[in-house]
Amino acid sequence: MPVLSLKALAERLGGSPEGDPEKLIEGIAPIEKAGEGETSFIANSKYLKYVQASRAGAIIIDKKTLLEGKNLIRVADPYFAFFQCLQLFYPQTPLYEPGIHPSASLDPSVKLGKSVAIRQSVVIEKNTRIGDGVIIAPQVFIGADCEIGEGTLIHARVCIRERTMIGKRVIIQSGAVIGGDGFGYVQKEGVWCKIPQVGNVVIEDDVEIGANTTIDRAVLGSTIIGRGTKLDNLVMVAHNVTIGEHSAVAAQAGFSGSTKVGHHALVGGQAGFAGHLQIGNHAVIIAQSGVTKDLPDDSIVSGFFARPHRDELRIAAYLKELPELIPRIRKEIKTLNRTNPISHPSL
Amino acid sequence: MPVLSLKALAERLGGSPEGDPEKLIEGIAPIEKAGEGETSFIANSKYLKYVQASRAGAIIIDKKTLLEGKNLIRVADPYFAFFQCLQLFYPQTPLYEPGIHPSASLDPSVKLGKSVAIRQSVVIEKNTRIGDGVIIAPQVFIGADCEIGEGTLIHARVCIRERTMIGKRVIIQSGAVIGGDGFGYVQKEGVWCKIPQVGNVVIEDDVEIGANTTIDRAVLGSTIIGRGTKLDNLVMVAHNVTIGEHSAVAAQAGFSGSTKVGHHALVGGQAGFAGHLQIGNHAVIIAQSGVTKDLPDDSIVSGFFARPHRDELRIAAYLKELPELIPRIRKEIKTLNRTNPISHPSL
Amino acid sequence: MPVLSLKALAERLGGSPEGDPEKLIEGIAPIEKAGEGETSFIANSKYLKYVQASRAGAIIIDKKTLLEGKNLIRVADPYFAFFQCLQLFYPQTPLYEPGIHPSASLDPSVKLGKSVAIRQSVVIEKNTRIGDGVIIAPQVFIGADCEIGEGTLIHARVCIRERTMIGKRVIIQSGAVIGGDGFGYVQKEGVWCKIPQVGNVVIEDDVEIGANTTIDRAVLGSTIIGRGTKLDNLVMVAHNVTIGEHSAVAAQAGFSGSTKVGHHALVGGQAGFAGHLQIGNHAVIIAQSGVTKDLPDDSIVSGFFARPHRDELRIAAYLKELPELIPRIRKEIKTLNRTNPISHPSL
Repeated sequence: MPVLSLKALAERLGGSPEGDPEKLIEGIAPIEKAGEGETSFIANSKYLKYVQASRAGAIIIDKKTLLEGKNLIRVADPYFAFFQCLQLFYPQTPLYEPGIHPSASLDPSVKLGKSVAIRQSVVIEKNTRIGDGVIIAPQVFIGADCEIGEGTLIHARVCIRERTMIGKRVIIQSGAVIGGDGFGYVQKEGVWCKIPQVGNVVIEDDVEIGANTTIDRAVLGSTIIGRGTKLDNLVMVAHNVTIGEHSAVAAQAGFSGSTKVGHHALVGGQAGFAGHLQIGNHAVIIAQSGVTKDLPDDSIVSGFFARPHRDELRIAAYLKELPELIPRIRKEIKTLNRTNPISHPSL
Repeated sequence: MPVLSLKALAERLGGSPEGDPEKLIEGIAPIEKAGEGETSFIANSKYLKYVQASRAGAIIIDKKTLLEGKNLIRVADPYFAFFQCLQLFYPQTPLYEPGIHPSASLDPSVKLGKSVAIRQSVVIEKNTRIGDGVIIAPQVFIGADCEIGEGTLIHARVCIRERTMIGKRVIIQSGAVIGGDGFGYVQKEGVWCKIPQVGNVVIEDDVEIGANTTIDRAVLGSTIIGRGTKLDNLVMVAHNVTIGEHSAVAAQAGFSGSTKVGHHALVGGQAGFAGHLQIGNHAVIIAQSGVTKDLPDDSIVSGFFARPHRDELRIAAYLKELPELIPRIRKEIKTLNRTNPISHPSL
Repeated sequence: MPVLSLKALAERLGGSPEGDPEKLIEGIAPIEKAGEGETSFIANSKYLKYVQASRAGAIIIDKKTLLEGKNLIRVADPYFAFFQCLQLFYPQTPLYEPGIHPSASLDPSVKLGKSVAIRQSVVIEKNTRIGDGVIIAPQVFIGADCEIGEGTLIHARVCIRERTMIGKRVIIQSGAVIGGDGFGYVQKEGVWCKIPQVGNVVIEDDVEIGANTTIDRAVLGSTIIGRGTKLDNLVMVAHNVTIGEHSAVAAQAGFSGSTKVGHHALVGGQAGFAGHLQIGNHAVIIAQSGVTKDLPDDSIVSGFFARPHRDELRIAAYLKELPELIPRIRKEIKTLNRTNPISHPSL
């Protein structure tokens, strides 16, 4: 790990130092745990309460928050500076060196790029093409006729079924299953008949896929995860779904068949989508929402059935008051009724 | 792939052709993508908007929808015809040829039927019996004392724990875990004591189980998935659950311990069930429902706590109006109060 | 299996026998299925309806329920007695004998304790330390620099990524992924930049982790599962979460990043937590809750947004009445308006 002065670190982060410019920093840690030689950061005001007691050698903070008596680095975006510090103090090295482990089982027709690492018990089936610099951790399964783009990293125990196309610099976390059969049946006389799922999955460049997430292949055509999109763990993507570029999907969210999500969408954890929907670009789906209708660009929705989050909050506010409000309304009407001999109290 | 005239294809599908009966069709594709030589289909009216611009050589459609100037095949159930076309144009071949890969590790006591395919790194433990024509993809684990029925297909990286009984023609998608310990503890002086889970899982004939789905074994007796039932991905089936025959369960749904579901039930995605419930035959559980009570046959429920869907929709309609309605009621009462000198405005 | 008289079994369970004290019992079974030589138990009053028709040789039941004409064992806690019976009638033996299977691939730097069992195709990477009596089932992956404490049992196909610390007597069900990268990105000009996840996961003693559950490693520091805590299947624990000691988390629940849960908490299935929350000790989170705020000790919450369960039930009661109530209120106001010539009917 490198050691930098406060001044030098501030420069690297594009920020301005406050306090002792020569203070030496050799790492980064959470505010509650950072020691003398470490910088910390405040990216969420919830953690300001830890600042006074913190032993951190420096604190990365935004340009507005009042804070004195500490070595600071003032930056426009403390969370981005945190990211920069992690890159700086924890330089990443490849998980495995190039080479094919003897216990890996590759069909003779598999085409390998340069500097590929393939680890123990990996199975790769016929006609699959592996790009330059790809790393495949132990126990991964890759079916026939797949393509894995340059620089992609596949963690231990991932399963990629036949005909899946994976782009460049993709990262797939352990346990993910890509290209399993879509869930398609048609009922005939009370019995489900399985519809052959003859399509595939396309994962574009720079996508990341979380642990134990499942992405089913299309019945026809492709299920598509757009460039730069990130899926968290235990997400379900059904057949023929398309998720646009640069979107992010939190854990345990689920997309039913043929739904299309725009680019730069944000999907909260445990949210669910009905099938055959069109979800706009930059849409924000709050956690646990149940989306049953198309959504225009820039929508922010929550609840079940999902509606504009602003409306949902207003409804939630009234809901909260209901146990107090309804009896009061009833009472008021009774009072009015009592003073009005013609009407009769019916509530 | 076969090539058929419109007339011949219509005959195969039990439908009637409209347009050029000699038009040659050699495949099937979605309406937006189908080319000259392909048929498409309209099974959901949402896709009618693509019909006019479609280059499809033919369109499979129901008997009522008005549509002119296109080659059509009119059928009673376009989705079923779609299924028939997939079978016709994509004849399925076995995923693997029979044979035992040398890297598979079978206990000497394992009994194998005829024409079994067992692929790389598969582990099968003692006394397990594998039926004729079973296909076991790479990296599958099957514990001791299991039984796998004829013609069953187990995809890569499935895990089947000891004593699991699996019927005929079952399909298990990658990453599923069948027969893991049920989640059973009893608390003693603030500490959880693990209750031995000594039962098993029984999967009846013609069941399909989705990727990364988990089915726990019973504490005593069996957790049972009934004949012909289909479970999607990431479904949770707790110990001692029974799901009846020919039901379908969408992704990420979860069943708590000892709940019993009838036959021909439909369970939506992310729905959850409390334990020890009785859910009737042909019940329909809308996505994201939280079911906390027994349900009679033919129930249709939604919401949390799940109630009849009709009621839930009515409640949702009133909920939506609440932010407008409550202030209006308040105002009205104020007006009445103002015109009524005896009562006092309390809202 | 042992055979005991009713009297002897009652003594073992700390209960009192009723009926024939010499009745021989040689097993335990559910009330609907128990035969002559088996005891059953009633731990949930839902099952009382099966008592009269039951052929069970004895029934374990609480001290209050009226029941005659049956051999009984009266105990303070029938569920705990059930647990005792399972231990008694199904003595557990280790899943595998000690020994290293030749197909396992251990880095030469791996340090093994005494009496370790390591099965087929297991991969263990450099510097990992395995304690005495650890059992590692087939196809498990354990990354570099991990520690696995004494007596821990790791079921088939578990994945443990680098630097994970696992305590003593931990049980990990199949398919779990421990130590995958946390879901952390920072957006820069519309593109997600991956934040290196340089922390780890710490699993304390006596924890159990369910099938296909995922526990992500911390961005910095540790994601922690406290001593004695039990996680069910398909649970998601994000980076930097801490779950306190002796808590229990039902299937498909999810915890967002940096949330801290106290000890002896109970979390229902499919419940979700926003990030950076503090959840108190002994908190009870009802199934499917969406928790968005800190919760004090001993909270019982439900709903979305989660609120005290008592309030949620009251709101639910009013909600249910809404479709009847609102029209009645409207009608009442109309009647009052009609009898009051000054105001005007506006609803």
